[in-house]
Amino acid sequence: MSLENLKSAYQSIKKSALDRYFEFIRFESVSSEAEYKDEVLKCADWLDAEVKKLNFKTTFWQTDNYPVLFAENTEAGPTKPTVLLYGHYDVQPVDPLELWESPPFEPTIKGTEVYARGAEDNKGQCSYVLAALEMLQTVHGKYPVNIKLCIEGEEEIGSPGLLKIVSQHARELKADHLLIVDVGLEAADKPAITLGVRGLVTMDVELTGSRGDLHSGANGNLVYNPNRALVEILAKARDEQGKVLVPGFYDKVLPVSADEKALINLEFDQAEYERLVGAKAISGEQPYPLLEAHWLRPTFEINGIGGGYTGSGFKTVIPAKAIAKISCRLVPNQDPWEIGKLVQEFIEKNVPEGIECKVTIRPGVGTAVRSSPHTTVAKVLSRAYEEVLGKSCDCILNGASIPITAELAKASGADILLVGYGLIDDNIHAPNEHFGLGRFENGALTIARALELFGE
Amino acid sequence: MSLENLKSAYQSIKKSALDRYFEFIRFESVSSEAEYKDEVLKCADWLDAEVKKLNFKTTFWQTDNYPVLFAENTEAGPTKPTVLLYGHYDVQPVDPLELWESPPFEPTIKGTEVYARGAEDNKGQCSYVLAALEMLQTVHGKYPVNIKLCIEGEEEIGSPGLLKIVSQHARELKADHLLIVDVGLEAADKPAITLGVRGLVTMDVELTGSRGDLHSGANGNLVYNPNRALVEILAKARDEQGKVLVPGFYDKVLPVSADEKALINLEFDQAEYERLVGAKAISGEQPYPLLEAHWLRPTFEINGIGGGYTGSGFKTVIPAKAIAKISCRLVPNQDPWEIGKLVQEFIEKNVPEGIECKVTIRPGVGTAVRSSPHTTVAKVLSRAYEEVLGKSCDCILNGASIPITAELAKASGADILLVGYGLIDDNIHAPNEHFGLGRFENGALTIARALELFGE
Repeated sequence: MSLENLKSAYQSIKKSALDRYFEFIRFESVSSEAEYKDEVLKCADWLDAEVKKLNFKTTFWQTDNYPVLFAENTEAGPTKPTVLLYGHYDVQPVDPLELWESPPFEPTIKGTEVYARGAEDNKGQCSYVLAALEMLQTVHGKYPVNIKLCIEGEEEIGSPGLLKIVSQHARELKADHLLIVDVGLEAADKPAITLGVRGLVTMDVELTGSRGDLHSGANGNLVYNPNRALVEILAKARDEQGKVLVPGFYDKVLPVSADEKALINLEFDQAEYERLVGAKAISGEQPYPLLEAHWLRPTFEINGIGGGYTGSGFKTVIPAKAIAKISCRLVPNQDPWEIGKLVQEFIEKNVPEGIECKVTIRPGVGTAVRSSPHTTVAKVLSRAYEEVLGKSCDCILNGASIPITAELAKASGADILLVGYGLIDDNIHAPNEHFGLGRFENGALTIARALELFGE
Repeated sequence: MSLENLKSAYQSIKKSALDRYFEFIRFESVSSEAEYKDEVLKCADWLDAEVKKLNFKTTFWQTDNYPVLFAENTEAGPTKPTVLLYGHYDVQPVDPLELWESPPFEPTIKGTEVYARGAEDNKGQCSYVLAALEMLQTVHGKYPVNIKLCIEGEEEIGSPGLLKIVSQHARELKADHLLIVDVGLEAADKPAITLGVRGLVTMDVELTGSRGDLHSGANGNLVYNPNRALVEILAKARDEQGKVLVPGFYDKVLPVSADEKALINLEFDQAEYERLVGAKAISGEQPYPLLEAHWLRPTFEINGIGGGYTGSGFKTVIPAKAIAKISCRLVPNQDPWEIGKLVQEFIEKNVPEGIECKVTIRPGVGTAVRSSPHTTVAKVLSRAYEEVLGKSCDCILNGASIPITAELAKASGADILLVGYGLIDDNIHAPNEHFGLGRFENGALTIARALELFGE
């Protein structure tokens, strides 16, 4: 068995794999907006059929919203290890729609990139896993290891359903190695395995001042403007260095040892990052260097803020309500519900007289994950990446969150690793999301080669 | 001549006047949104035809946006004074549309109130002026004084067009008395003349952090979130007592003398106000009492704030941009452009590294107006209100702004007074705006009676 066989297998299944990928994208499977419900469910059914074609037994685990597709092929038998692969079939909303240069649910190839919502996150990554499986069937006629797939439909809303039921399915999920195929690299040709993601808690803040919107002339200086209350409260949450001032926020953060730091590649090409995102890189918590602030420190972000009139022209209104959407990315040992509560108490404590406040911590929280570089799964994936990309493999972290990661590791009893071929400028969660056809191929090769190596 | 004659005249023209009023409302004459342009222009043409029917010579003064309708009837001759009446045919936007309980451009009568955008501001008030003119034609066959009308279509965007050309039309506008019919009373049966309005300057703030929206996990703590910058900057604009911290903001504010304060009715029924607006009354600048803060002190309001995702569900985004719409209500001797510049400089000075800022002061600023209670126009209107409502007339101020007021007073050379029948809970500028049929009648009687008294 060799990478060359897999490369020619990729050529033979390429058309089928890309067709499947594009069909996957065309489902408008936005999990956070109720009007897409039918599309999300249709997408799940379609995926089930596709996975069955790859010789898997499948079942749906129902949740309050969207089912989890669980699939397994255990033909390799008890002498071979079991590898569990995780992905998701839901995607982020597409707005602001007017900023998309091509229809978000129609895969559009420009140069070597596929543009669409989900092109990368996670339909692109999920699709090259399916391509890898198709290649292995082509080369070997069977899988070199026992394979389980767990592909859910609520990742973009924090996996509330799977989080609730994952421990009940510990027996089915049992595996030796767990691959979360939902992260990326620092550059397309720079192999890296991801040893951790941050945790996450999100919440909605709603401030109410009056029964309805008020005229700002007829009522100005007579009532507390909810917009004013909102900016005052949120401005108090961080100091000028970016330190979060919510009492207790950092209490459970563990010190990061020099050894731990040495393990991960903390080199950061600031100029390249700035070029890619079109923003100046600013450490969110000074004096921590950029990548430390990003990977090793928790955040407090205002993901959305809104109140009053923001259309064209002007409306001299004091709005009845102002809202904010807040998220905190967390590091190991921080409990998301506990942090959510602390933020909620902080906000409620700072509400001025005349304003009513409602803070709702959203379901679908996640704890941070940090995994070892010394496990079999880490070694196998390093080698697979090195063979495919021809360079030595780094260890990195990822500032994002995959809420289910920690719970899935626990339930499956597997050693966990996060892998993927995403890049920082793929515009995931944003307009004009895209993924590279070359990365799609390398992803398929890396997963297929890793599954071979697990079986050796 | 007596009020009784006018009352019976109102009964005879009531149907015609209300039909005209309702037809006026049905034009979707939103001046701040370009998509309504045709409707605003159609409304102007319709109004021109209606005014002509009342025996006026009319002309349109063109501006960059919407024409000013100028009309005059000077049949009373040079021995009689000239009264100039001001109103506007444009209205505020209607969003949030979902909060309207009836279609905003279809007058809907519930009990004694007419619900619609513009029902009060200013189509209701403008329509009872037209009703008063129709009554005078009915009673006298001619007008008791020379009458000029100036009805513009850009009041809700700050009258930029009329402000630009008003001084060029000083000759046409020349009058002895000027009535701005665009304010209100503290209660429907409590007569009051308004001795002043606040000035106004409005501006747009746009903060940009990155080329596009960014994933808050993949970029959190690596870039400065524009939402964070916005709340931090705006929170610095006022202290906890509500004092505006923009350097120089209060420099030109004149002390208010005890005599001046004694002239105006500073009694404030806080419980009634709170009941009407469904909000707790909070002085915007402590320790000033509520009505002093509202009438005699300038404000800094955030009329709109927006950035990132604010829809249902959640989107873990760091937005590329965040915006705010700011207005300051001003008191006499504060120059709106100067205050706008001070606020702009303050905002620009507080922009953090990594964020680009654009502040645009909008055209259509207005200076505050304070008029004397000892003029003929003040005395005539007090008497007219007293005759119609049967109670003694107060002097009040108004916290709102009618940007053209000061310039129109200067150009016309007239003594100015602000009058009207609006109430605080008419929901002007908000969903479910309404105006009372009883107030419509009393408005028509008050204006008609005042025009008779001017001619005596």
